[in-house]
Amino acid sequence: MKPRNIRPPRGFRDFPPDIMLLRKELISRLENVFQRYGFDPIDTPVLEYWEILAGKYGEEAENRLIWRFKDPWSKREYALRYDLTVPLARFVATNRNIVMPFKRYHIAPVWRHEEPQKGRYREFYQCDADIVGSPHPEADAEIVNLAIDSLKALGFSTGYTIRLNDRRLLKGIFEEELGLSNIVPVYRAIDKLDKIGIDGVRKELEKLGLAQGTIEKILDIISISGSPNDILEEISKKYSNNSNVSAAVAHLGEMSSLIIESDKIKIDMSLVRGLDYYTGPILEIVLDKPRIGSVAGGGRYDNLIGLFIGESIPATGVSIGLERIIDAGLELGIYDLNRRTVTEVQVIVMKHDFFHYAWKVTDLLRQGGISTRIDLGRVNERKQRKKAQRLSIPVLAFIGGREVESGTVTLYSVKCGERFTVKLDDVVERARELLSNC
Amino acid sequence: MKPRNIRPPRGFRDFPPDIMLLRKELISRLENVFQRYGFDPIDTPVLEYWEILAGKYGEEAENRLIWRFKDPWSKREYALRYDLTVPLARFVATNRNIVMPFKRYHIAPVWRHEEPQKGRYREFYQCDADIVGSPHPEADAEIVNLAIDSLKALGFSTGYTIRLNDRRLLKGIFEEELGLSNIVPVYRAIDKLDKIGIDGVRKELEKLGLAQGTIEKILDIISISGSPNDILEEISKKYSNNSNVSAAVAHLGEMSSLIIESDKIKIDMSLVRGLDYYTGPILEIVLDKPRIGSVAGGGRYDNLIGLFIGESIPATGVSIGLERIIDAGLELGIYDLNRRTVTEVQVIVMKHDFFHYAWKVTDLLRQGGISTRIDLGRVNERKQRKKAQRLSIPVLAFIGGREVESGTVTLYSVKCGERFTVKLDDVVERARELLSNC
Repeated sequence: MKPRNIRPPRGFRDFPPDIMLLRKELISRLENVFQRYGFDPIDTPVLEYWEILAGKYGEEAENRLIWRFKDPWSKREYALRYDLTVPLARFVATNRNIVMPFKRYHIAPVWRHEEPQKGRYREFYQCDADIVGSPHPEADAEIVNLAIDSLKALGFSTGYTIRLNDRRLLKGIFEEELGLSNIVPVYRAIDKLDKIGIDGVRKELEKLGLAQGTIEKILDIISISGSPNDILEEISKKYSNNSNVSAAVAHLGEMSSLIIESDKIKIDMSLVRGLDYYTGPILEIVLDKPRIGSVAGGGRYDNLIGLFIGESIPATGVSIGLERIIDAGLELGIYDLNRRTVTEVQVIVMKHDFFHYAWKVTDLLRQGGISTRIDLGRVNERKQRKKAQRLSIPVLAFIGGREVESGTVTLYSVKCGERFTVKLDDVVERARELLSNC
Repeated sequence: MKPRNIRPPRGFRDFPPDIMLLRKELISRLENVFQRYGFDPIDTPVLEYWEILAGKYGEEAENRLIWRFKDPWSKREYALRYDLTVPLARFVATNRNIVMPFKRYHIAPVWRHEEPQKGRYREFYQCDADIVGSPHPEADAEIVNLAIDSLKALGFSTGYTIRLNDRRLLKGIFEEELGLSNIVPVYRAIDKLDKIGIDGVRKELEKLGLAQGTIEKILDIISISGSPNDILEEISKKYSNNSNVSAAVAHLGEMSSLIIESDKIKIDMSLVRGLDYYTGPILEIVLDKPRIGSVAGGGRYDNLIGLFIGESIPATGVSIGLERIIDAGLELGIYDLNRRTVTEVQVIVMKHDFFHYAWKVTDLLRQGGISTRIDLGRVNERKQRKKAQRLSIPVLAFIGGREVESGTVTLYSVKCGERFTVKLDDVVERARELLSNC
């Protein structure tokens, strides 16, 4: 076979060790936060029957963005999951015996048939935490706090804004001001604000056939933004008779009082979020820089699970955008890709005659919990050292004739240049010292 | 929607928290071993272009067992990966700048269009460690030792056999004894031995149109099994002129001298393994009980990567069968599913009036690194305690009027029945004591 087109599929990525070690480190920090908040891990299949996913995300997503195919044997239609929320709803419907409220996290890949571009992939990770079974604002507040603590754990302690809105707030105000009942197409136009700007949104609204006055009113409404104290009281006074508005104002007020970094909250009426299934508070976290869109997003979806079981179960959650976090962290210099291997010690075999002894040393180090490599290519000492250097392995363990004869190992720390010869009995302890002190 | 057929797809599984916590614990133990051996993590897409997977596994797998579909937009054919080895070969072909030997591990799901049955799923995890770039027996020995240490870490220190063979051994002996050159169909028949028994294999060989004498010779050959010392010398003498046999004998001999539990090795001529791509040593680890087939398997595949790049790169590896390990460990009582949540402390809110204070206590415990839940359902104290009990949460933190007034928390260990009231400043430390001492 000629070396042509040996690539992952378009929009898909390989993760070599340096990237993978960073990803695993960040995922482990996230899991740590999720678990501190008492969320438990679950996993669900990457495939669902198509009819499980159908009718949940909105038209565009379902027609264009879902990887969907028919199984030639069973003739059933399958789809790769598009997010982790609809699978959670299906999970809750399948596993009716779980203790409520059910707090789960799920860190796993999802698939979208996107046009690939910088920062946008067809396969990417979502890191979701959701609470199923509580309609109360404290559940939404817990989700926001978890998102804030997640960002902190990922190295973003400042320099972000928590955008908050409530689907009922928009709905209520639109009812009062415009008499609009079908506002889903309006949401979709507003959702594009970050991408296409205010004039773009105006054009989208014109396409919907709305009157110029209505459009201007919509643009006025979505320009409302500010701290909860400023905004909620004002809106509450203005629309005191609308039940959607008062429910949202009460909910957002209680929520805000429980959020740990309340000075970072901005109620923002232009926040609508793309997915159809949201019913109450919605949130996004946006970094001040780089300007890469939101790094976390979520909200309340009290009707989604009901689509499966005919009985409404309230739910709320957030998804941390690992891919954008990584892009941002690398750009800001918070993260780097300098760690190229887990290996701590490279055993250098000066002559292949010493291999069996070197093998024993390698085993000793490994049993002592130290990540160790030994030459498997039968190359000369210089090449062994070069390979160790390319991988930035911090400690070398030389095995030459002198070491074999005297039952010793010569350890060398690349970083501090320290070198000494130790007995086999001490090699684990001394290697560990070199690793932690240098 | 009526509650009907709300299930994961046939042959696919949900993992609720109890199962997921066990799976994560076992995967973490495996990763620990893999990393000690100096293997680095990678990840590859779940989808590959179909032509990448085609022609690697053998006819049956490719026609029947691969999830394969055509993308309606690009008209390209995609397939869900069937194992992690062919994706590794593709990865090496794509990433030509990696340092060789390349030692990587990959713990991830794969998909096969199997008929689901007990212990056989359409989506399951493989835990693979492979060494790319070394043709030497020490690489194969490292793989075997890693598999042995993996089993140990998973709780199986004894009660298993390492079955070892070499594709060249079978090939050489078949050449000498039978003059057979196309032995792939014969391998496939032999591979079914565990499932269909010796008579079944005889029938399969008859179907291939082989003469009765040839069939009996094959059955004789595959009945050879014993310790490396016993078998290798005998075979080596008998077929000293066959280059395949002598290469295999030398390779297996050197390998065996480097394996940590050499008394557990059995050279077994009936071991062929199903996949087409193996070229040298092959191995399987089988538990004495329960009899569930092999829990680890692998071997050398020196020509697979060459299919992509036109240049041969030797490689060897092993796959640990997590699903069978879990089934076996649960059956043997080595594992249990008693851990139902990560939560260590449940904050019990005696009256909703105390919620804000309880929220503060919850935050304190979480910031102190303790996994904590607080009631989000606004249910009464009795129900809160019952939910905590159903999840086996070990410590309760009661917040009543007395606690709010005096700035304290009453901690209660469910296990040892200990109960005391502590100041807020001490709550993290005292809760930690209760968790570790009870």
